[in-house]
Amino acid sequence: MFVAVIGNGRCSADVAALAEAVGRELAQRGAVLVCGGLGGVMEAACRGAKSAGGLTIGILPGTSRRDANPYVDVPVVTGMGEARNVLVVQSAQAVIAVHGEYGTLSEIAHALKLGIPVVGLSTWHLSKDNGERQAIVRARTPQEAVEMAVALAVS
Amino acid sequence: MFVAVIGNGRCSADVAALAEAVGRELAQRGAVLVCGGLGGVMEAACRGAKSAGGLTIGILPGTSRRDANPYVDVPVVTGMGEARNVLVVQSAQAVIAVHGEYGTLSEIAHALKLGIPVVGLSTWHLSKDNGERQAIVRARTPQEAVEMAVALAVS
Amino acid sequence: MFVAVIGNGRCSADVAALAEAVGRELAQRGAVLVCGGLGGVMEAACRGAKSAGGLTIGILPGTSRRDANPYVDVPVVTGMGEARNVLVVQSAQAVIAVHGEYGTLSEIAHALKLGIPVVGLSTWHLSKDNGERQAIVRARTPQEAVEMAVALAVS
Amino acid sequence: MFVAVIGNGRCSADVAALAEAVGRELAQRGAVLVCGGLGGVMEAACRGAKSAGGLTIGILPGTSRRDANPYVDVPVVTGMGEARNVLVVQSAQAVIAVHGEYGTLSEIAHALKLGIPVVGLSTWHLSKDNGERQAIVRARTPQEAVEMAVALAVS
Repeated sequence: MFVAVIGNGRCSADVAALAEAVGRELAQRGAVLVCGGLGGVMEAACRGAKSAGGLTIGILPGTSRRDANPYVDVPVVTGMGEARNVLVVQSAQAVIAVHGEYGTLSEIAHALKLGIPVVGLSTWHLSKDNGERQAIVRARTPQEAVEMAVALAVS
Repeated sequence: MFVAVIGNGRCSADVAALAEAVGRELAQRGAVLVCGGLGGVMEAACRGAKSAGGLTIGILPGTSRRDANPYVDVPVVTGMGEARNVLVVQSAQAVIAVHGEYGTLSEIAHALKLGIPVVGLSTWHLSKDNGERQAIVRARTPQEAVEMAVALAVS
Repeated sequence: MFVAVIGNGRCSADVAALAEAVGRELAQRGAVLVCGGLGGVMEAACRGAKSAGGLTIGILPGTSRRDANPYVDVPVVTGMGEARNVLVVQSAQAVIAVHGEYGTLSEIAHALKLGIPVVGLSTWHLSKDNGERQAIVRARTPQEAVEMAVALAVS
Repeated sequence: MFVAVIGNGRCSADVAALAEAVGRELAQRGAVLVCGGLGGVMEAACRGAKSAGGLTIGILPGTSRRDANPYVDVPVVTGMGEARNVLVVQSAQAVIAVHGEYGTLSEIAHALKLGIPVVGLSTWHLSKDNGERQAIVRARTPQEAVEMAVALAVS
């Protein structure tokens, strides 16, 4: 099973701790971690996955494999900039969003458009004039986020 | 000046009327219309632009120029699927979102990430746990949306 | 009709003169010029097209519309690097290659894979162990190249 | 080390045997195999790599992970069509081309443009009016191809 962890390239220690726990928990369940390959939430999640012996894929926006954080096993070098966000979520069977800014929001939106379930940890809320859209499944802990992602994953 | 109009590929007659007015108003001000090239809001905006003699660019997700709506002057055939959404906003100096679903949300997010101003007509509201993000400039009418987009456009 | 002109981003005065003549001839026949938007052959072709009142589309690899040469009417900003080469040929109904290096070769190959006819002016020769592949139609002059491209263009 | 094996999605039993030997040899040297994830040469190379316990990455053109051949460990789902060819070679430190048609030629060209060494087994010959370009390093056997790729690989 392939699960993407998405979030900002810079984050606080608290957010990094959440992401690291998500990565560790995913690896303990045998899931492969897919991410954008850079720092912040991506790096913390990869570090967590590696601490539990998991496999990590980093789909990079730039043109150099050296952009990958040190916990990425498989750097995919796209050179596509922001358009690589689609590849991150499309290569996963479920997505876990940890906080995140506009890049993360674009990935949430692409996932929902593509029918890939999104679990959120303190991430964006989406609403339109007629009320909130409940498309993001809310988790309270990293463990719960991983359980939900595994349960909801598309084949 | 290049302005993107984004919105769903299917829409009600009311929403189409809004999009058509946006397209017409843009053409009257000499702006080139950039869009995703398909139906719904995209087609209505292109029809409006052509009614006022404007130029329309359709950046298509598929592999055939025949996917373009009949009001597209320049079909750009990407074959990239959803990843073409980044190109639509990145090729514009301002973005006007008319209603919209998750594809539109991804375009809004990409534009905000890239620093391209987004004007919204009855579109998404974005918030995080600590409150709404006011990054989308709200317009009440097509005319106001176009005025705002022209005023905010990046060089 | 949309015709792509492909070639290197730097070129000699002789090659530029060929490309400029191709661009002018295309515009005189009412064809829209599609290219990669940068310098060298692309700029010369756009200059030729504009001298005859044509429309020019530049599908840029970088993230800024300012990368476009001054004769591009419609810059499409992809931020995709080399992957934008596919878009240049896929957005055209025929391709004219003027000399060119490896980037041009990739465009020729993508076009042939996609079934889009390629006319060559002093460009690459392709062969395999069992002999030359005659997939590129050879022209001797810019005028002949444009005639062939218009005649072979796919719908 | 990451090495791409490129070639056609359909191939003869002889060509498949070459590709399988390349994949096996790469895995025996500890290299990760990167490919386009589909059938023919790609599938044979992946089968060879798995027979020697290697790791295989398939960068798919379509929108479904199910398009991957059964020997792909990590399917990357791009939905980008032909534009994914750039990602295959850019994610590798060296490229081995086994026969191949126009898609393979586009990958060879992208690799050479990006400065990634290309080793060829009975693949394309490239020439211009003033003679053959020797940019593709010729190997006579799968073993030699892998030795050359490993020796030439960029960091």
